[in-house]
Amino acid sequence: MAENGAPRIRLGMVGGGTGAFIGYVHRIAARLDGDYELVAGALSSRPAVARESGRNLGLAEDRIYTSYEEMAARESQRKDGIQAVAIVTPNHMHYGPARAFLEAGIHVICDKPLTSTLADARALAAVKPKRGAKFLLTHNYTGYPLVRQARELVRSGVLGKIRVVQVEYPQDWLTNVVHNKQADWRTDPERSGAGGAIGDIGTHAYNLARFVTGLTTEAVSADLASFVKGRKLDDNVHIMLRFQGGARGMLWASQVAVGCENGLQLRVYGEKAGLEWRQDNPNYMWFTEFGKPKQLLTRGGAISGGPAPAMHVRIPSGHPEGYLEAFATLYSQFAQVIRGEGRAVAGLLPSLADGVEGMEFIMAAVESSRNDGRWTRLSDVN
Amino acid sequence: MAENGAPRIRLGMVGGGTGAFIGYVHRIAARLDGDYELVAGALSSRPAVARESGRNLGLAEDRIYTSYEEMAARESQRKDGIQAVAIVTPNHMHYGPARAFLEAGIHVICDKPLTSTLADARALAAVKPKRGAKFLLTHNYTGYPLVRQARELVRSGVLGKIRVVQVEYPQDWLTNVVHNKQADWRTDPERSGAGGAIGDIGTHAYNLARFVTGLTTEAVSADLASFVKGRKLDDNVHIMLRFQGGARGMLWASQVAVGCENGLQLRVYGEKAGLEWRQDNPNYMWFTEFGKPKQLLTRGGAISGGPAPAMHVRIPSGHPEGYLEAFATLYSQFAQVIRGEGRAVAGLLPSLADGVEGMEFIMAAVESSRNDGRWTRLSDVN
Amino acid sequence: MAENGAPRIRLGMVGGGTGAFIGYVHRIAARLDGDYELVAGALSSRPAVARESGRNLGLAEDRIYTSYEEMAARESQRKDGIQAVAIVTPNHMHYGPARAFLEAGIHVICDKPLTSTLADARALAAVKPKRGAKFLLTHNYTGYPLVRQARELVRSGVLGKIRVVQVEYPQDWLTNVVHNKQADWRTDPERSGAGGAIGDIGTHAYNLARFVTGLTTEAVSADLASFVKGRKLDDNVHIMLRFQGGARGMLWASQVAVGCENGLQLRVYGEKAGLEWRQDNPNYMWFTEFGKPKQLLTRGGAISGGPAPAMHVRIPSGHPEGYLEAFATLYSQFAQVIRGEGRAVAGLLPSLADGVEGMEFIMAAVESSRNDGRWTRLSDVN
Amino acid sequence: MAENGAPRIRLGMVGGGTGAFIGYVHRIAARLDGDYELVAGALSSRPAVARESGRNLGLAEDRIYTSYEEMAARESQRKDGIQAVAIVTPNHMHYGPARAFLEAGIHVICDKPLTSTLADARALAAVKPKRGAKFLLTHNYTGYPLVRQARELVRSGVLGKIRVVQVEYPQDWLTNVVHNKQADWRTDPERSGAGGAIGDIGTHAYNLARFVTGLTTEAVSADLASFVKGRKLDDNVHIMLRFQGGARGMLWASQVAVGCENGLQLRVYGEKAGLEWRQDNPNYMWFTEFGKPKQLLTRGGAISGGPAPAMHVRIPSGHPEGYLEAFATLYSQFAQVIRGEGRAVAGLLPSLADGVEGMEFIMAAVESSRNDGRWTRLSDVN
Repeated sequence: MAENGAPRIRLGMVGGGTGAFIGYVHRIAARLDGDYELVAGALSSRPAVARESGRNLGLAEDRIYTSYEEMAARESQRKDGIQAVAIVTPNHMHYGPARAFLEAGIHVICDKPLTSTLADARALAAVKPKRGAKFLLTHNYTGYPLVRQARELVRSGVLGKIRVVQVEYPQDWLTNVVHNKQADWRTDPERSGAGGAIGDIGTHAYNLARFVTGLTTEAVSADLASFVKGRKLDDNVHIMLRFQGGARGMLWASQVAVGCENGLQLRVYGEKAGLEWRQDNPNYMWFTEFGKPKQLLTRGGAISGGPAPAMHVRIPSGHPEGYLEAFATLYSQFAQVIRGEGRAVAGLLPSLADGVEGMEFIMAAVESSRNDGRWTRLSDVN
Repeated sequence: MAENGAPRIRLGMVGGGTGAFIGYVHRIAARLDGDYELVAGALSSRPAVARESGRNLGLAEDRIYTSYEEMAARESQRKDGIQAVAIVTPNHMHYGPARAFLEAGIHVICDKPLTSTLADARALAAVKPKRGAKFLLTHNYTGYPLVRQARELVRSGVLGKIRVVQVEYPQDWLTNVVHNKQADWRTDPERSGAGGAIGDIGTHAYNLARFVTGLTTEAVSADLASFVKGRKLDDNVHIMLRFQGGARGMLWASQVAVGCENGLQLRVYGEKAGLEWRQDNPNYMWFTEFGKPKQLLTRGGAISGGPAPAMHVRIPSGHPEGYLEAFATLYSQFAQVIRGEGRAVAGLLPSLADGVEGMEFIMAAVESSRNDGRWTRLSDVN
Repeated sequence: MAENGAPRIRLGMVGGGTGAFIGYVHRIAARLDGDYELVAGALSSRPAVARESGRNLGLAEDRIYTSYEEMAARESQRKDGIQAVAIVTPNHMHYGPARAFLEAGIHVICDKPLTSTLADARALAAVKPKRGAKFLLTHNYTGYPLVRQARELVRSGVLGKIRVVQVEYPQDWLTNVVHNKQADWRTDPERSGAGGAIGDIGTHAYNLARFVTGLTTEAVSADLASFVKGRKLDDNVHIMLRFQGGARGMLWASQVAVGCENGLQLRVYGEKAGLEWRQDNPNYMWFTEFGKPKQLLTRGGAISGGPAPAMHVRIPSGHPEGYLEAFATLYSQFAQVIRGEGRAVAGLLPSLADGVEGMEFIMAAVESSRNDGRWTRLSDVN
Repeated sequence: MAENGAPRIRLGMVGGGTGAFIGYVHRIAARLDGDYELVAGALSSRPAVARESGRNLGLAEDRIYTSYEEMAARESQRKDGIQAVAIVTPNHMHYGPARAFLEAGIHVICDKPLTSTLADARALAAVKPKRGAKFLLTHNYTGYPLVRQARELVRSGVLGKIRVVQVEYPQDWLTNVVHNKQADWRTDPERSGAGGAIGDIGTHAYNLARFVTGLTTEAVSADLASFVKGRKLDDNVHIMLRFQGGARGMLWASQVAVGCENGLQLRVYGEKAGLEWRQDNPNYMWFTEFGKPKQLLTRGGAISGGPAPAMHVRIPSGHPEGYLEAFATLYSQFAQVIRGEGRAVAGLLPSLADGVEGMEFIMAAVESSRNDGRWTRLSDVN
């Protein structure tokens, strides 16, 4: 049962078979607050792997599927069929399952980026979900409590009009040629789409900046690079951003920044205050009002001068929460939405529209880079 | 199901009713890796609260108990009875339930400190568990991956003979007179025992130092203070430590250190290297070999010069894990023990013997402080 | 006397009268290692201020000048005339004095940026100094020991071929309209030149990146903004950089980043290792070889795997040096040059050529920004 | 000249010959603000070294002395004789010169600890200085701006009544047997006195705690250890402190804490607020009022809720000052005292009385440790 005694939501999974990273993360996120129970899966596109993975996870034999189409069809017929599905496949395999389950009236939890092409993204946005099926895009970093608090601080006006946004997401795991399950599809245009680092992590950074600041993007000027010999997609992303209203930004994403593990960082500067947050120590956030001392806000800790944060905090300040808790918050708040109790979290959960914008961002950056950095509007790309 | 497809262990809970902190933490820890399912509870000593809390958590009516004795008796009779129980009551209510469930052949997961008196602790250690029932004491900080790695580093000899151990655990939540569920029993000798801060957090610090260094304590010299007017138990603890073999240590625990949220920190210095770890940013650990640059080891990250860590890591370095994951690691590794697969974690899980030593530590410190800091051996206290 | 017993070099100063910031800094830098003695000055363009400032500093009456031309003429005639002069005036007042003293055979220590126009800079570079008079541009951040070590690490090849350079210099002191001696000329195109933040701090950041990496700039794409109403010059600078050989970079400089005091930071990532250094805690530098743990190098501390640093360290590691020591290192090493013992520091001291490049960088960025971010070569600007 | 145009104070030096560390530091400190000119020296007890060192520093031949007695006698006779002397010899050679110069009417700047024996310290305190000669003990860490601000914060009452004081000073340079000029005398009871680490760094820590808190020490309970084979003096110091009024403290000093370079740290917790400061990043200080967010105060930066700091700041916040600037502040403020302008710094400069207390602290700790940690009053030792 969930902590509030509600019955668990029956969950299926597409992708996430043995050896997968993000599927495992989704399963923990689904379990952590007790809101979901995994009961079915099409865990791999390879039937043998799908079957073995399903057994390893203890799924009932008749709910281990070897195709998502079959799973959508059968589960939507069962009385005890899944109510929601988590799609944790490579990018090019998001569109098909997402469409199938939405049209089968099953809620969809989908990893990012939304799809591998903008056309797919826009087509998905045009799908008519059956029985009001809902959609969640797991831009998981928006689930961190202090990211939520940052957003509240901006919305409250305490930062004043935003002027400068610096966001970055450096990693180093693709510094050399790498061949493994994680690396292979992410560096393959067939499966990843036109963007490499920009799709894998750049969209996270972009989404984070948008989520916190609420600014509307006007145009981007990008310089994408691919440093590793033979790599077909970008592994380093430099982007300048212009927002409506005059704010400016910079976005850096890299998979070749040696010494950086997962260094997502957001800094926002307004007319009256600034804030800085890093994902690798996510329980702390700098907040400085102009002319006053720097404050280190802590997750769930003392607040001064700002609004009460709309965050989901499980344990007291000083007891660090991490990546999995942030991920779980998306899951448990989506459970609220599924149960019809989602009003409190309205606007907080990344949506299909966010996913489409993320794809526009990727394509605008790719196009700008191909045009030697020409400022490119998100709405102008195809 | 657990991630490995094993059926979930049926879990009961004593304490942890509505409004409790640590019971909620235990439930998340039990769920996170999928190894347990909560199916029964005696969640409060007050029958109405017990019933309401059980319903809130969705327990079946016939498995909501109003006394732990009844729960032990009935559950041990059921075919689908609980296999393990989590005891999350105030200290003085550990002994009774722990004894009852062990004697009913049900595995016990018990919060720390072990009991409220040393006599209880020793009596509990003398209990003969039925059907090989096992015991886990939730010194949860030992579940942090880098704490495990620190222990491995010490055991590998890379630090050389240990000389100095500095451990501290400052908080500030009892800076003033506080009245709430958490504060009330912790500052009440009837429920907490002879120690205040020393029992609540000092034992965590002591256990952490012992777990990592493996040193045997010789004697302690303590100066306990109670700064808040009317408080009956210590809220600040200063202790000097002497270990067998000549190492020296200092332990500081405080509930009145303004600005400290949950600042557990361990520093260990040997003849050849030193290490430093803080709980509030637990994915990082300093490690320095004498004459070489300081290294910042990361949870799951690159290792140099040391042994492979015996840690349980769920997600890659740079994706922070926190307090709940460390807690969950104790739960999932105790599940391995329960399933008879515990060999790999032998010596890693805090035991009944650790609990008795923790009580001896508390009593030795209290006695030393009463004797103006006289060096006091743990084995000399009663 | 200097520490090595050499007689002090007789120093004059242009600018730096009462209330000035950077003149005071230059005087401390000149004194710290004992290599200079201030004996003459044209401390202000306002005669009364020049006289009062000279008296306040204890200069002899006949060596307090009210014009730099007179000072250059007279001092070059005196037997005990100044051997070197520090020029610490606003940018538009660098060219005249620098030229006058070089042509009078007096060594010149000049604040940055070199001039207020590129034409002036190129004209100054064409001056024929009398008696081999030398020139030092005080890009003081290059004097930090760890910046020197960073440069050595890059040159040694331990980072491999450089791929990505991230440099930034955020401040917040011009967040609002400010009127004081420091702010007035820096926001005035007449005195500062065509660049605001880019000239004041952007050039420092650019020079630092160039000094450490040794990369040659190919082109810049810039987006300069002026956020404060009525401000005529840029107060926020976003630049993408392309270097010969394929490395890419980003430069951010801002005077409106609330909460940033003087946040100069350089990060360099090569094929084999990366390094990160911040000016506000300058005695520490991160260095990570790919696949190995992060190392925190300390000024004067243990070294591993890299070359011996060519740094000037006064006190042991753990005893922090700061901004003034780095500045003083430029002064004392320029004293070595003046005394003909400069071989050891060849290539380390910022030169007139660096100053010209700095002006080209400013102008290229300004031009690129006016052309909507068009990639602009430094050599193409006028 | 000094920055204020005052003539430089003529300075002599006892000790500090070629290869000495602290003499060099004193010379920089004397030069930095322009208040002193070194003109005479008895730089070594070995005549040849004294002469060579004097020449290396460019001293006039007739002011290079081979004994401090001669120097005191001759300089006090010269019209242009030294006005102040810096004593930078090993501990056992402080008393003789300090007495001689005070009795010759020459101001004394003396390194810490005051002497090598308590008897010497008390005898020195009883000396009648000629012509009002003043005394400065270079507990240099009190010169850091934020240490001064910490003291002001405590005095202002914003912390409330102080409860807990944690001070520590770990280093690692004596981890093994070391033989060099610095190590030899510090580990030799003949030259260092009865204390090793406690005299060399423990007194700094103790003085810092006393300077900031203003608390009066009641008694100490100490456990001194010597970890390195053959070492005659302590290299690790554990002390519990009791202050008048009920505050408690802990002091740890170590020369064998591998990975610690010069880790002096002070933490003070009162009824209403707490503060934390580290010497190795001295431009920042944590300050937290109970129930409010943590603030990171910066040297010279924004202040909130506290009094204006009585600090000597040379450059704006964000431009780090370090060890030498703090040291120089003692020199320049002692120059104010010498010039009769010392009222503004009354109470800020470490005095002879502080030196006597420091010796009492050392002896009380040594005696307590010999008595197995018996609480020992400073006033009870001989």
